Amino acid sequence: MAGNSFGEVFRVTTFGESHGDGVGAVIDGCPPWISLSPGDFVRDMARRRPGRDSLVTPRSEEDRVEILSGVFEDLTTGAPITLFIRNRDVDARPYEILRRLFRPGHGDYTYFKKYGHFDFRGGGRYSARETAARVAAGVVAGKILEPLGVKVVAYTLELGGIRAGCIDLDLIDKSPFYCPDPVSSQRMEEAVSNTRKEGDSLGGIAEIRVIGCPAGLGEPAFDKLDADLAKAVMSVGTVKGIEIGAGFEAARFKGSKNNDPITPSGFGSNRAGGILGGISNGDEILLRAAMKPIPSISQEQDTVDREGHPAKMSFTGRQDIAPIPRVIPVLEAMVKIVLADHYLRSKTILKEEPIESSIFAKTPIW
Amino acid sequence: MAGNSFGEVFRVTTFGESHGDGVGAVIDGCPPWISLSPGDFVRDMARRRPGRDSLVTPRSEEDRVEILSGVFEDLTTGAPITLFIRNRDVDARPYEILRRLFRPGHGDYTYFKKYGHFDFRGGGRYSARETAARVAAGVVAGKILEPLGVKVVAYTLELGGIRAGCIDLDLIDKSPFYCPDPVSSQRMEEAVSNTRKEGDSLGGIAEIRVIGCPAGLGEPAFDKLDADLAKAVMSVGTVKGIEIGAGFEAARFKGSKNNDPITPSGFGSNRAGGILGGISNGDEILLRAAMKPIPSISQEQDTVDREGHPAKMSFTGRQDIAPIPRVIPVLEAMVKIVLADHYLRSKTILKEEPIESSIFAKTPIW
Amino acid sequence: MAGNSFGEVFRVTTFGESHGDGVGAVIDGCPPWISLSPGDFVRDMARRRPGRDSLVTPRSEEDRVEILSGVFEDLTTGAPITLFIRNRDVDARPYEILRRLFRPGHGDYTYFKKYGHFDFRGGGRYSARETAARVAAGVVAGKILEPLGVKVVAYTLELGGIRAGCIDLDLIDKSPFYCPDPVSSQRMEEAVSNTRKEGDSLGGIAEIRVIGCPAGLGEPAFDKLDADLAKAVMSVGTVKGIEIGAGFEAARFKGSKNNDPITPSGFGSNRAGGILGGISNGDEILLRAAMKPIPSISQEQDTVDREGHPAKMSFTGRQDIAPIPRVIPVLEAMVKIVLADHYLRSKTILKEEPIESSIFAKTPIW
Amino acid sequence: MAGNSFGEVFRVTTFGESHGDGVGAVIDGCPPWISLSPGDFVRDMARRRPGRDSLVTPRSEEDRVEILSGVFEDLTTGAPITLFIRNRDVDARPYEILRRLFRPGHGDYTYFKKYGHFDFRGGGRYSARETAARVAAGVVAGKILEPLGVKVVAYTLELGGIRAGCIDLDLIDKSPFYCPDPVSSQRMEEAVSNTRKEGDSLGGIAEIRVIGCPAGLGEPAFDKLDADLAKAVMSVGTVKGIEIGAGFEAARFKGSKNNDPITPSGFGSNRAGGILGGISNGDEILLRAAMKPIPSISQEQDTVDREGHPAKMSFTGRQDIAPIPRVIPVLEAMVKIVLADHYLRSKTILKEEPIESSIFAKTPIW
Repeated sequence: MAGNSFGEVFRVTTFGESHGDGVGAVIDGCPPWISLSPGDFVRDMARRRPGRDSLVTPRSEEDRVEILSGVFEDLTTGAPITLFIRNRDVDARPYEILRRLFRPGHGDYTYFKKYGHFDFRGGGRYSARETAARVAAGVVAGKILEPLGVKVVAYTLELGGIRAGCIDLDLIDKSPFYCPDPVSSQRMEEAVSNTRKEGDSLGGIAEIRVIGCPAGLGEPAFDKLDADLAKAVMSVGTVKGIEIGAGFEAARFKGSKNNDPITPSGFGSNRAGGILGGISNGDEILLRAAMKPIPSISQEQDTVDREGHPAKMSFTGRQDIAPIPRVIPVLEAMVKIVLADHYLRSKTILKEEPIESSIFAKTPIW
Repeated sequence: MAGNSFGEVFRVTTFGESHGDGVGAVIDGCPPWISLSPGDFVRDMARRRPGRDSLVTPRSEEDRVEILSGVFEDLTTGAPITLFIRNRDVDARPYEILRRLFRPGHGDYTYFKKYGHFDFRGGGRYSARETAARVAAGVVAGKILEPLGVKVVAYTLELGGIRAGCIDLDLIDKSPFYCPDPVSSQRMEEAVSNTRKEGDSLGGIAEIRVIGCPAGLGEPAFDKLDADLAKAVMSVGTVKGIEIGAGFEAARFKGSKNNDPITPSGFGSNRAGGILGGISNGDEILLRAAMKPIPSISQEQDTVDREGHPAKMSFTGRQDIAPIPRVIPVLEAMVKIVLADHYLRSKTILKEEPIESSIFAKTPIW
Repeated sequence: MAGNSFGEVFRVTTFGESHGDGVGAVIDGCPPWISLSPGDFVRDMARRRPGRDSLVTPRSEEDRVEILSGVFEDLTTGAPITLFIRNRDVDARPYEILRRLFRPGHGDYTYFKKYGHFDFRGGGRYSARETAARVAAGVVAGKILEPLGVKVVAYTLELGGIRAGCIDLDLIDKSPFYCPDPVSSQRMEEAVSNTRKEGDSLGGIAEIRVIGCPAGLGEPAFDKLDADLAKAVMSVGTVKGIEIGAGFEAARFKGSKNNDPITPSGFGSNRAGGILGGISNGDEILLRAAMKPIPSISQEQDTVDREGHPAKMSFTGRQDIAPIPRVIPVLEAMVKIVLADHYLRSKTILKEEPIESSIFAKTPIW
Repeated sequence: MAGNSFGEVFRVTTFGESHGDGVGAVIDGCPPWISLSPGDFVRDMARRRPGRDSLVTPRSEEDRVEILSGVFEDLTTGAPITLFIRNRDVDARPYEILRRLFRPGHGDYTYFKKYGHFDFRGGGRYSARETAARVAAGVVAGKILEPLGVKVVAYTLELGGIRAGCIDLDLIDKSPFYCPDPVSSQRMEEAVSNTRKEGDSLGGIAEIRVIGCPAGLGEPAFDKLDADLAKAVMSVGTVKGIEIGAGFEAARFKGSKNNDPITPSGFGSNRAGGILGGISNGDEILLRAAMKPIPSISQEQDTVDREGHPAKMSFTGRQDIAPIPRVIPVLEAMVKIVLADHYLRSKTILKEEPIESSIFAKTPIW
């Protein structure tokens, strides 16, 4: 109801604020017997952590995941798994100005209208800090997908208008921006550096691929796989647009071009982005997310105070210049959570022996 | 779990197939005392019905909504409301070929993989026929929004690559394509006509505006208003892309341009599309949906049969050329359902007298 | 939220009123490939139908179940199944008095306080008529349990203070009261007859047994199998008390007596009623439900009108004398729905090969 | 799905194990502006804590509740509230025997069948330790009910067959067993002492009263207030029976006796236990819970080991003799959670001005 949970069988509830004790997640519905230990979280938490690229954000965080429940002797037990990430290095001083003023582009004003208050210490609940809990939960989701051979990879397609010219998945981790094209990555670095000097910020586009997803995940009506992916990704604060497969381009194709031909060896193209009728078709799932620039900028902006009087504000706290690269592991996590959930959901359909009938055929293809 | 329900408080469950008895919806959580009678559904059902524009689809349907429960003496009672729309004129003959072959671009293959069967009579559950139930449910949602002054308007921004040059909301209903620009509407008509002759189909882009939405709807984490709108709209089969406010363009803006300034009289621009931090900000909500071309075309396409052998197929059933215009009222309905649900959800927050404290301020603005 | 749905994976939503078009249920999450046709419902609908024993209620209903969706060629497809039972023989005249007066023991007053109205035509939504939809849904649940060898049997343990002296499950269907003891059944018949003459009504106790339930159904914390059974059974309007296994008697046992010994061939007794720690233990599940007497009686009772003025009323509509026997198939249905749901839920736990560890043992017992 | 959450609007998710880091709860949907600080939990946590009466259990726990999220400056913010109670003094040595043997009357065997393992350290997730989290969540629920004047009181009606002869609510807290009759309390003390010497254990019956509950809480069909209360109370591990109002006695009443007359000043009796048609009627809500004796006893019992071989076991860990008195605040907590949830749910029904019609009347009574 209050919307802090996601998923049906694999159900993640996040909690915590940017300047409180910490952030965390309770995962209910994770099967037992899955190996899980604090070390499993290190890589993704580090990828989300700022400071990896010194150009992007100077804030230093050490995001160690504590497992408070649900794991015994490094195996999940079937009980709810609680992950907790303590806040450190939380200097709320730059946020003092928020006691009076609403930041343009932030949720300060809408929180104030909804709850009658907002947390002046950097956003509180709606801070991007909450996504640390999502990344941690995504690691657990990944443990369910791994034995199935499902791999989720996100990377930067575009940053500040600079688009990757080629896509080599092996190069992603070599780029501070998770950009699969080294040349573009270099140009992105310059763009970020210049934008920082201007006191401004940048947006970008990420692309996410799911490799090895089995056919049959997703539900026909409202919980289509693409619908749940769209919600998952759009629930990341910075995202303003989503595409599946050909996306907006499909709107300009004719049917004869947009339809992926079916051949004995698989689909002849992948404009569908791996999903047909809301259900995965066994091909690569492909989606893109457009992200707005970080709203906190040091340039002076027009705003009002809590009484509605006009004011000027410029933000001096340590901030990212772009949601990229930190959002990349968050997007991966959300996609993994959707897939793990739909995979477990798919198990509730009984596999009885098919009966011969006009609509029920016995022979599977591929 | 099986995904045929949507919404938390205002909860819509759809049921039915394209060639069975009919399609319908059960709405649980609709408050009592709302006037509702079969006549309320006529306009939207007619707008969704094909044949309005003879160019688009020749199939004739008469979609009368029966109210099977939840209404007494033309008032809702608080009990679940059941709406039922009988199928008529269901000629399954053109679909005989589906007993053997998977249609490219359709869910035939994915249903087959998921359930071990597919309904050869025109898609069954995943037919666009299911959206008739959504439109009916949207009418009830609209009855909750109306007294609040909330209005949802969708229109065609683009069809077959032809984009509306201007937007005059008053002209929407004058166009067979719900296009707010008469000149473009005329060109769309020609494009549809030509495409029909080619045995092909077209996609398009719809824009949806919510006028008069109060600030404060939406939940901070996963059930952000934009996340739920994205899911709602993406759950319409034909949609492959979604944008909120500036959408993909925002990815190329700098923060200083993308941030909407806050002034004593409201926001100075609306790149956010009416939503900040996942919560409505009182401004117009603006979203766009990209739709792929109708996959059933009469041109010959490559496919396989249920045993995986290559085959050719061309579809001869009566079909739309484009999802537009019929999808327009469906999109409106989904957005209305999301808003009605979030409006009722917002009522669970107690309105106690605010207490004076550093984060809690008394004076609301605007 | 509005509480008209039950179950997580096998999810039943009921709708309809006693004097409207009919009552029905949408079942979401039923797996495909299950044979289902209108004939499957005949037995249980007849058992619930009044008039079976002319002594109990003279109202004649013909409860034919229509399958409006989710079934094709007598097989479930995985799509939501809609069952509809039209109301017939609905004479609302005896209920005219309800326009003014609240019936003691009924929900008239509480509905009025909650919704600002009540349906004067025999209760509307809170009429026992709604249970027809539950019985229909229970038939579908039974179809999932049947291949597992799970059998649910309810019978009358007590009616009007007369308790079955012996329990012979084979005799249940021979008794008009589903009483497993023919002698007691005869005495119940006399008690009902006498009570009818007095213009009064009777309550009773039903016992429900689940035979063949596999171990492992139920969830540890809130959704314990006994907790969900308690809710399911208590949600039947007439029920005021529930016991699992030894029930209230267990409160007076010592631990040494109440604990069921574990032996190589199974449990040595069944005071637990087949459930330990909220999870089925493979033994027979045993529960009892206490039902209040039917509140509508022809004796004169004190009440008030809608303005709060004192009044006398005696009810002259056709009514049952006791909830028994009609409630028996309703209780069976609710138990079957809980079991089918928990069975499908249990499938979401991955069965990986157990790993050797101090808490994880390889060898299963029994 | 995995059942660790309870409630729809006020949604409590518990986590943690008896011998892990601790137990806790995440509460989603709690409104903002409610004062909450660690001190609020002290009384109820102390009442649940063993050792209060040295006769009952010697285990010493210090249950301090940490608020990890959702509260700022001692006010709830509307964000999820996380409560955490660290485990201390966890000596797992007495549980070593559980590596091999299943305890009769416990969930060891059913957990083993469900998950392929059980936590040999005192039950893990299904330990009564989990109820500490419920008591903490109940304190928050109580904060919502308090301003409404709703008070929930539980007490011991019976322990080891000794029944309270009179009920004086003011004396409850004076008794180590929360027994409202001092004479019976003294006898209970002796019974517990004797039973301890026998190496055995006792069960009991608790009664719970809700004073000041407004009319109108509860939903008509499955989520009846009594159904949700039944589930809530039955989900406490030790409970084997539930009664609302007259309970099992109602099964032996005639309708003329069981119906509570309605008078201009209220109901003339309260056999309904404050609930009619599943909705609170404004009268006192009355329910009773029967609890089995604690299964862990030091007397020798028959069991089997994990390979199914017969074995003898006697339990030597520190254990309660009876679920009473510790379960009393747990029952109160569960009832408070149900009421807070249904209260918030009731707010989603719009209060429009009633329209004059035959079923809708304007004048409320009382």
